[in-house]
Amino acid sequence: METAPEMPLVSLADYERAAAASMDPGAHGYAYGGAGEEITLRDNVAAWRRWAIRPRVLVGVGERDPSVSVLGVRRPHPVLVAPMAYQRLAHPDGETAMARAAAATGAVMCLSTLATATPAQVAAAAPEATRWFQLYVFADRGVTRELVDQAADNGYEALVVTVDLPITGIRERDLRSGVQAASAELVASAAAAGARGPMTPHDFTRLIDPNLRWSDIERLVQESSLPVILKGILTPEDARLACEHGAAAIVVSNHGGRQLDTVLAGADALMPVVEEVAGRIDVLVDGGIRRGTDVLKALSLGARAVMVGRPALWGLAVGGAEGAQRVLEILLAELDAALALAGAPRAGELDRRFVCRAPWAAGGP
Amino acid sequence: METAPEMPLVSLADYERAAAASMDPGAHGYAYGGAGEEITLRDNVAAWRRWAIRPRVLVGVGERDPSVSVLGVRRPHPVLVAPMAYQRLAHPDGETAMARAAAATGAVMCLSTLATATPAQVAAAAPEATRWFQLYVFADRGVTRELVDQAADNGYEALVVTVDLPITGIRERDLRSGVQAASAELVASAAAAGARGPMTPHDFTRLIDPNLRWSDIERLVQESSLPVILKGILTPEDARLACEHGAAAIVVSNHGGRQLDTVLAGADALMPVVEEVAGRIDVLVDGGIRRGTDVLKALSLGARAVMVGRPALWGLAVGGAEGAQRVLEILLAELDAALALAGAPRAGELDRRFVCRAPWAAGGP
Amino acid sequence: METAPEMPLVSLADYERAAAASMDPGAHGYAYGGAGEEITLRDNVAAWRRWAIRPRVLVGVGERDPSVSVLGVRRPHPVLVAPMAYQRLAHPDGETAMARAAAATGAVMCLSTLATATPAQVAAAAPEATRWFQLYVFADRGVTRELVDQAADNGYEALVVTVDLPITGIRERDLRSGVQAASAELVASAAAAGARGPMTPHDFTRLIDPNLRWSDIERLVQESSLPVILKGILTPEDARLACEHGAAAIVVSNHGGRQLDTVLAGADALMPVVEEVAGRIDVLVDGGIRRGTDVLKALSLGARAVMVGRPALWGLAVGGAEGAQRVLEILLAELDAALALAGAPRAGELDRRFVCRAPWAAGGP
Amino acid sequence: METAPEMPLVSLADYERAAAASMDPGAHGYAYGGAGEEITLRDNVAAWRRWAIRPRVLVGVGERDPSVSVLGVRRPHPVLVAPMAYQRLAHPDGETAMARAAAATGAVMCLSTLATATPAQVAAAAPEATRWFQLYVFADRGVTRELVDQAADNGYEALVVTVDLPITGIRERDLRSGVQAASAELVASAAAAGARGPMTPHDFTRLIDPNLRWSDIERLVQESSLPVILKGILTPEDARLACEHGAAAIVVSNHGGRQLDTVLAGADALMPVVEEVAGRIDVLVDGGIRRGTDVLKALSLGARAVMVGRPALWGLAVGGAEGAQRVLEILLAELDAALALAGAPRAGELDRRFVCRAPWAAGGP
Repeated sequence: METAPEMPLVSLADYERAAAASMDPGAHGYAYGGAGEEITLRDNVAAWRRWAIRPRVLVGVGERDPSVSVLGVRRPHPVLVAPMAYQRLAHPDGETAMARAAAATGAVMCLSTLATATPAQVAAAAPEATRWFQLYVFADRGVTRELVDQAADNGYEALVVTVDLPITGIRERDLRSGVQAASAELVASAAAAGARGPMTPHDFTRLIDPNLRWSDIERLVQESSLPVILKGILTPEDARLACEHGAAAIVVSNHGGRQLDTVLAGADALMPVVEEVAGRIDVLVDGGIRRGTDVLKALSLGARAVMVGRPALWGLAVGGAEGAQRVLEILLAELDAALALAGAPRAGELDRRFVCRAPWAAGGP
Repeated sequence: METAPEMPLVSLADYERAAAASMDPGAHGYAYGGAGEEITLRDNVAAWRRWAIRPRVLVGVGERDPSVSVLGVRRPHPVLVAPMAYQRLAHPDGETAMARAAAATGAVMCLSTLATATPAQVAAAAPEATRWFQLYVFADRGVTRELVDQAADNGYEALVVTVDLPITGIRERDLRSGVQAASAELVASAAAAGARGPMTPHDFTRLIDPNLRWSDIERLVQESSLPVILKGILTPEDARLACEHGAAAIVVSNHGGRQLDTVLAGADALMPVVEEVAGRIDVLVDGGIRRGTDVLKALSLGARAVMVGRPALWGLAVGGAEGAQRVLEILLAELDAALALAGAPRAGELDRRFVCRAPWAAGGP
Repeated sequence: METAPEMPLVSLADYERAAAASMDPGAHGYAYGGAGEEITLRDNVAAWRRWAIRPRVLVGVGERDPSVSVLGVRRPHPVLVAPMAYQRLAHPDGETAMARAAAATGAVMCLSTLATATPAQVAAAAPEATRWFQLYVFADRGVTRELVDQAADNGYEALVVTVDLPITGIRERDLRSGVQAASAELVASAAAAGARGPMTPHDFTRLIDPNLRWSDIERLVQESSLPVILKGILTPEDARLACEHGAAAIVVSNHGGRQLDTVLAGADALMPVVEEVAGRIDVLVDGGIRRGTDVLKALSLGARAVMVGRPALWGLAVGGAEGAQRVLEILLAELDAALALAGAPRAGELDRRFVCRAPWAAGGP
Repeated sequence: METAPEMPLVSLADYERAAAASMDPGAHGYAYGGAGEEITLRDNVAAWRRWAIRPRVLVGVGERDPSVSVLGVRRPHPVLVAPMAYQRLAHPDGETAMARAAAATGAVMCLSTLATATPAQVAAAAPEATRWFQLYVFADRGVTRELVDQAADNGYEALVVTVDLPITGIRERDLRSGVQAASAELVASAAAAGARGPMTPHDFTRLIDPNLRWSDIERLVQESSLPVILKGILTPEDARLACEHGAAAIVVSNHGGRQLDTVLAGADALMPVVEEVAGRIDVLVDGGIRRGTDVLKALSLGARAVMVGRPALWGLAVGGAEGAQRVLEILLAELDAALALAGAPRAGELDRRFVCRAPWAAGGP
C-alpha cells in the first residue's frame, strides 16, 4: 500500500516511508540499514507479530493509566527515545529537536555518545526532559570519564552503556554508499578523543574499546554517581552477570539489527531474560517497536519500558521536533487504545496472561 | 485470479471482488477494513485454513440434515447474519433487504444498534425472519433501555450484547478516507441519544459506555425478558465469567478484526472456549467464514452456529436483497456438499474427530 | 521458469506446462482443477516435499530393482496409471492410448467407469497391459453388475471402488467454463444407465449412488470374482473398516483434490493408515506424485505402490500414447536414480528410516 | 536488490550475481544448478538461516583467533576450498588460479579428480598451499591407484573420497543446455581411464564405480599413505560406519544439492552426526556457506571446518585467482567480525551454546 505524498501520516510506517523519500540516500541507508543480509533487522519487527494478544472484556476501561516505574521512578508511560548517533544527518536540528519531542511527550531522551550536539546543548534545549546518557567506552578512558562527568553535570539521570559494539558490524549499505557520518568536529566526544575531519560511521566507532569486560563495568558502577544500564544483552547468562556486576537495569537489544546478523530479536530474547532476572533489576527492550500493541506485548512479557529508535528519527527527518513528537504521540495513542481493548487499563498490571504465541506464525497451538 | 465483470459469481470471494469494484471507496474501506495492520483481519480467514478435514466414507449421505439447535431452538442450518452497522452504505435498501435475504434462506437476522433502519422497519420488512437485536450499551442508559424495549416489542428473540467495543479500534482506512458513515438522523439509536448531523463511524461509537462491566451484564440479564448473548469473547477466562453472569450464549469473535490488531482469530480461540464452557451455554463463532468447509470446521470444534458478516454485505452491495440471499445460498450449498463429502450427513453430529491441524500450516504432524 | 515450446520436455512439470498450453481451456480446467480454493489440490504436491530423504551411502547400487509386490503379484515397479474419466477430452485416442503407454512401461492401467472407451476396446488395444477396473457404484445396480461382469470378462484383474464421490465436489473452474464432458453415448456406462446427449461432468456423476455403505462393499466383495480395492480413504478409522469388510487393498487418496477442499493430502494421511492396517492388506496412495523421489517417499512410508493421474494425462494430451509413455518413463528413470542415490537399490526394502520430516517445512527438528 | 556492474562487490552474494552475468550460460548452469527441483540446493543456504546466534558480551574481543585443528594439524582458520570439477569452465586459469587463491588466504585447496589441471600442475602453481585430493573411485581401479599415487607424490596431504556419487543426479539445467564439460583430454584422470573427445558432465561421471562399498573404503584406508576423508555423509548411521571403517574424518555434505533432491541440508544433518561421532574423528560440513555467521554456526554445531565451493568459483569466474582470493577474504573478514560480536574470540571454543533454532523459522521457541 503506497502512501501518496499528500496522504495524512497516521502510523509509524507512514513516517518510515516518508523519511525514505525525503532523506539523503546515504544518510537514510546508514540509519535504516542493518548488518549482513538484514535478517535480524527485519525480524526485529516481525518478532513482535509472532506474539498474539489475549484480550479481556468488561473490566471497565474508561480511564487508562499508561504509567510505569523505571529505575524506581514513575514515568508517565513506558516509551523512551533510544540513543542514536548523528541525528543531524536526519535533520539540521538533530538531537536538540529530538529532546524537545521527548520533553513534549514525556518520553525519556537517551543522548548518544556520538551525538551531533553536546550534553549541555541538549540539556539547555529541553531542560524539562528526563535525559539519560548513552555511553560508548572509548579506548581513551580519560575521554570516557570526561563524558560521564558532562552527563552528570548536565542533569542526565542514568548512563546507558552499550555493550554490543566492541567492533562495528558489517553494514553493506554503508559499504556501497560510502556515506560520511559527519566531520569529527561536530561530534564532541570524537573531537575530545582526538579525531579530526570527515569520518565514516566506521571511523567513529573505531574509537571504542573492543576489550571492554565485566570488570570494567563493575568499576564504572563503583565510580559513577549515576545508575548504570547495560544495553545490548540477549541471553539469560549475560543478564545474570549484569545483575551480579551492579547494573541498575538492562536493555534487551540487538542494536537495531546493526551489529551481527541472525542474532535473536528482542521480542524473542526478552522472556528468558526476564525469567532469569526475576525482578532483581529492571529489564527494558528495544528493536522493532512499531505499534502500540508491540509496547503492550513487551510489557506483558516483563519489560518495564521500551526504547524506540528509528521511528522517532523518521519523524525528525520528516518534520523536525514536531515530526518526532507526532511519531511519539501516534505510538502513545495506539498504546492507549491497546490498553483499553486488551482489557488492561493500567499498563503496570500487564502480565504474561495477555499474550500467547501467534497461531499465524507457528501454524498451530 | 481476477473475475471479469461478466463472469458468474460462484463463490463468496467472487462477491467480495465484485463489491470492491462497485462500492464507494470510503464506504468499502469502512466495511472491509480492520484495525492496525490488519493482521487479525487477514488471519480471521486464514485461521480456518489451518484446520484440515478428516473425511469419513461409506456412511450413506443421500440425505443431509444441516439443522442445529441454538438457544434451545431448532434452526434449519447454522448460519446467521452478523450484526453490521450502516448497511445503507452498501445498498439503499440496507437492513430491510438484508433481513429479507435472511428470511428467504432461514438465517437469523441480527440487527445492529447502529442500523440505518429501525427494529420496527426491519420487523415489518421481514416478519418471517428470526431476528436478534445487537446491543451497544450507551453511556445514556435511558436510550439503552429504550432500544431493548423496541427489540422486545418488535419480536426480536435475543439480545446480542457487544462487549469488545469499549472504544473504537484505530482503523487506518477510515483515517485516510475520512469516510462519513451517515447523518445521525438515519441511525435511530444515535438520534435518540441526542446525536445530530453528519457523523463518522468514530463519532457514533463514542456514544458507547467504555466502563461496561460484568455487573452491568448481570443487571441486564435480570432486567431483560430476552436471552442475552455476549459477543466478543476470546478467552476461556471470559467464557467462564459469561457462564457465571447469566449469559445465554457467547459469540467467540474479534469484531471482524476491526478492534485490536494481532488478537486471536475465532478459529483459534474457539476450542479452548468450548472446553471451558463444557456445554453449559451455547458457543457461536464469527470471523473469516468464507466457505462451507469453514462452517463445518466451526461446528466440529464445538460451535453451535456461525455468524457471517462481510460476505452478506458484499452480496447486498452487489445485488440488494437478492445478492445477499445468493451469498447465503452459495454458503449453504457448500455446507451441504461438505457434510456429504466429510461423511457427516447430520450437522448436529459433527465433532472434533472430523478436523485436525492442517499439515500445510504446521509443516508436520 | 517458463519452458519455451522448443525446449526438451525433461520433467513431469514440463509436460504439465505443455498440456496447459495445448489443451482446450474448458477440458484442461476440468482435468487440472480441484474443489473449492484448491488448497488440497496444491497441497497434494506440496505435502511430498514436506518429507526429506535420509540417504545411505556405500551399499553398492550398480544394480537396482524397482519391483514391488501388489495384491500378491510381483510388479516390475510401483507406478500405476490412476483411473481418470473422459480421456478423449485430452486426446482423441483416449484410454486406448493410455493403456498402450501403460503396457509399454509395465504400469497397471486403471480404467475409469466414466471412460470414453469400453473395457473391451481397451483390452483389445493393450492386451499385454495389466488392467484394473475402477468402479463407480451407480444408483442403478443392474448397470453396476453389468460393468463388473464386463471387467471380469475382459481380463481386468481387480475392481477399484471409488468411495469418496457420493456427490461431486464443487469445482469452480467447471462452474465458470460450463465445460461439456462428452455426449453420454461416448461413455458406455452412462449410456447403459440411460443417459443421453451432451452432459457436464456433474451430470455424469449424478448417476452415482450417494447412499453407498460398508454393507454394500461387503456384498460386492462376496459377489465379485475380482479382488476389491477401496479408493478414497484418508483416516485410520476407515482403513480399519476396509480391512474388516473384506477389501483386498486400499488407496489413500483425496480424489486429486477434486472433492472436498482442505482435506488431508495422501502424503500426510498415509502413515497413520499404514500403521493402523499393520500389513493386513496392501495400502496404495495417490495424489501429487510428480517426482521419482515422491515415489520413493511413498514406499518408505509404507505404500506398496502409487497411482499417477494428471501427469499421465498431460503426456497423453501432448503426445498421445507416446507422450503418456514418455511421462511414465521419466518418472521411472527418476525413481531409479532415487533408489541409487538414497542407497536403497531394492524398492521393496525401503522403510521409514529413509525419510524424515523436512526441516525446511517445519522450521526445525 | 540488483547490483549494478559498477557497484563494489562486498559480499559473496555480489560475486554470485556478477558471475551469473559474466559466465557462459551452459557452464554457469552446470556450476550453479542442482538436482530435480533444486529444493535441496536452495535449502543448503536457507538451512543455516534457520539457526540463530546467541551472542555473549563483555568478554574482551580485541584479539581474535580463528584457528582450528583439522586432522590434528593447526589451520589458520576453518575455511577450505571444496573440490569442484572443470574449473576452467569458469576461468581459463582454472584450478591453478584457485590454488593460488587458497594459498594466499591460508585455505586448504581440495583438488577434484575431474580437475582440468593435473595434481602436479596445481602443486607447482601453489606449492605453499595445503592441498587435499578429492577422489572419485573409478570402475577402473588401476586408474584410481594411479590417481592416489600422483596425489601422494605431489604433496597432497589427504584423500577426500566422495561417497555420494555412485551415479550422477538428474540435473535439468544440464539436460536443457546440453552443456559440454570439456574434452576428455583436458581432464587427466578421464584420459587415463581411456575417455576421448568432447564429453558432457554425465559422460565423465559414468567412469565412476556405482558399486563402491564400505569394504572398498576399508581397503583404501589400509593401502593409502594418506588419511582418508569421506565426503557425502548425511546420517548418524553412516557416520558411525565411517568411524568403524577407518576414516580420518567425514564431510557432512549433500554434494551441493546436485545429487538427490529433497535430502537434508548439511546445516540440519550436522548435529546428529556430531553427536554420533562423539569426537572419535573430525567432522567437516559443506553446502550453503555464504556468510561468516554460517561458518560460526557450523563450528558451534560441532564441525571442525567448512568447505566452500560455488562462492570461490564465482570469484574465480569474475576475477581469476584474485577474484577467488577476494571471496575468501570477505568470508574470513565476516568470520572475524562474527567471532568478535558473538563474544567468541577463539573459534576453537565455540560450542552449542552460541546457537539456537531461529524463532523466525520455527514460529516460536
